[in-house]
Amino acid sequence: MNAPSSTTGERLVHVPLGDRAYDILIGPGLIARAGGEIIARLTGRRVAIITDENVGPLYLAQLMDSLQTDGFEAVSLVLPPGEKTKSMDGLAAATDMILAARIERGDAVIALGGGVIGDLAGFAAGIVRRGVRFIQIPTSLLAQVDSSVGGKTGINTRHGKNLLGVFHQPDLVLADTAVLDSLSPREFRAGYAEIAKYGLIDKPYFFHWLEKNWKKVFEGGPERIEAIAISCQAKADVVVEDERETGRRALLNLGHTFGHALEAATGYDSSRLVHGEGVAIGMVLAHQFSARLNLASPDDGQRVAAHLAEVGLPTRMVDIEGGLPPTQILMEAIAQDKKVKSGKLTLILTRGIGQSFVADDVPTSEVFSFLEDMR
Amino acid sequence: MNAPSSTTGERLVHVPLGDRAYDILIGPGLIARAGGEIIARLTGRRVAIITDENVGPLYLAQLMDSLQTDGFEAVSLVLPPGEKTKSMDGLAAATDMILAARIERGDAVIALGGGVIGDLAGFAAGIVRRGVRFIQIPTSLLAQVDSSVGGKTGINTRHGKNLLGVFHQPDLVLADTAVLDSLSPREFRAGYAEIAKYGLIDKPYFFHWLEKNWKKVFEGGPERIEAIAISCQAKADVVVEDERETGRRALLNLGHTFGHALEAATGYDSSRLVHGEGVAIGMVLAHQFSARLNLASPDDGQRVAAHLAEVGLPTRMVDIEGGLPPTQILMEAIAQDKKVKSGKLTLILTRGIGQSFVADDVPTSEVFSFLEDMR
Repeated sequence: MNAPSSTTGERLVHVPLGDRAYDILIGPGLIARAGGEIIARLTGRRVAIITDENVGPLYLAQLMDSLQTDGFEAVSLVLPPGEKTKSMDGLAAATDMILAARIERGDAVIALGGGVIGDLAGFAAGIVRRGVRFIQIPTSLLAQVDSSVGGKTGINTRHGKNLLGVFHQPDLVLADTAVLDSLSPREFRAGYAEIAKYGLIDKPYFFHWLEKNWKKVFEGGPERIEAIAISCQAKADVVVEDERETGRRALLNLGHTFGHALEAATGYDSSRLVHGEGVAIGMVLAHQFSARLNLASPDDGQRVAAHLAEVGLPTRMVDIEGGLPPTQILMEAIAQDKKVKSGKLTLILTRGIGQSFVADDVPTSEVFSFLEDMR
Repeated sequence: MNAPSSTTGERLVHVPLGDRAYDILIGPGLIARAGGEIIARLTGRRVAIITDENVGPLYLAQLMDSLQTDGFEAVSLVLPPGEKTKSMDGLAAATDMILAARIERGDAVIALGGGVIGDLAGFAAGIVRRGVRFIQIPTSLLAQVDSSVGGKTGINTRHGKNLLGVFHQPDLVLADTAVLDSLSPREFRAGYAEIAKYGLIDKPYFFHWLEKNWKKVFEGGPERIEAIAISCQAKADVVVEDERETGRRALLNLGHTFGHALEAATGYDSSRLVHGEGVAIGMVLAHQFSARLNLASPDDGQRVAAHLAEVGLPTRMVDIEGGLPPTQILMEAIAQDKKVKSGKLTLILTRGIGQSFVADDVPTSEVFSFLEDMR
């Protein structure tokens, strides 16, 4: 854990994607000086900010001030919070506002919010005039360590989550760590699940560090910035290797196939289950299923479950309030998930902590009986 | 005019775009053997066909037969014809059908129809699962020589035409020239305007050939296939050089900035003006405006107008039935057009027939007074 840091503790992670390369800045106070960071990286002088009713009242005025001080013409759209905004209607509202603001190819759309706003605004930026510039200002821990990096955008449909979208890389990500203090403990924990994921994919030493230091990450301070910077670097490394997910990038879906199915099964009702909680349960299931297939030791699954439970995350399907539909319904959600090719089920499995791999020929019958036994 | 030809007169134009390279096949009878051509180029075995109520009754059964004979699982969606289908609602209907058909990344969406269906289906294929395979079977002359090649997709919004979309290259284009016999003379002429455009951009010898041979192109036979193949090759050459329109590709917009403004001014009412007619008037205006700026001889504009009028195309704004709104409204449509960067007007101008160029700093006041004088 010796990544370079400045005196303010601010970090810069560069994502070297050729003519789509960009910087991720991580540290406190970035929203207040967003204008200066953006003007250095944009040819246009118009920006359209998309945010939601939770985040807007907290940070929109501060962001607008900074942009206007630096000479930007800025307009904003405040959408309802929650997954339901990631819809065709939300996309229509966002694109209409961007076009009304006459955003051209050198101008930018700014996402100020969590993963929902980032995914929606990024999709809108990717299709207006077949692509305008895009800046992410993620305000949830989940968005800072995962969804704001890598260029995946999308909305949900009645067939499943994120089934419509484009790859559209941001031109800049500003992860203001000061805003994380306003998150509820539950939201913070949900983001933490994705941080733990990077350790479980291929960084056993990082998972070990988290087991020892997680309280400091939750309390704030240098360990928090450290954990976010390591996560962004880990994601950037995978994205650079496989931008359009034809191979290795699929590892980032560790816990996500089970997690998405659980989200679908609870109707994307965030009072019952948020994305990071689904991923937490999904990661434990992935380790347990790997053990059942004799790929990994059951001890590893227990260690993962113990750590996630210690931080307060759900780790079992029975932890979800209100019960789940029959296993067959879960299987249908899994089958409609993107990780299916020509009818074969692709799952991220593991040989132990930090030893995940892509298994692209998992029999659905094995998954069915495993899920039956685990509920 | 010595492009190679087989005994059936069929032509193949290859578009060498690296891992997005594809073939354009041009000749009679391609729909009847579409299955064989597609199976050779696709890993998946599911296809979703999108067509409209004009084209579906004529060719859908034939296409389905060919696909099913070759072992494809094919489903279809028949949408209302016309520009209004290129909307957010049309996109929602298309993507919903594609997802319901469980089209995965190696499967394909097939557009069977004119430019509207191609643009809409291509956009849908570009955003379902962040991109599935896409096959164009263009059934209008306009689509065969222009919109089916090059990967531009899109829908219209209340702010203007094609303002939402993605770049998504097809994996195959099947231009069945036999279907052109079912086009009305007006539709054929509208497509011919785009053929003439390739001569006017940078092929004076081709424009000269068209002046002599246009009747044979209209009657069918080898000259028609020749003209389509030369047009596809011309478009492919420009697209390969500048796939995402950062420079030279803008030349393909010759006549289009004026043309789009006229389409907007007539409410996209195809009974008054179709796209190719707008382009015909727009190309004449581009030549006349270039002459007014002392860039080209007025004789060239007269020659262009004379040829387009001879084939039966409109060449003046007064040729549009029902009148036009005030010039200020036309200017607003031009300003919202994509060919605007940071408030400066980009127009394709010319130094003479076959000598077009991108002018990126045209004063809007000059355009305004020119349009005032021409109406």
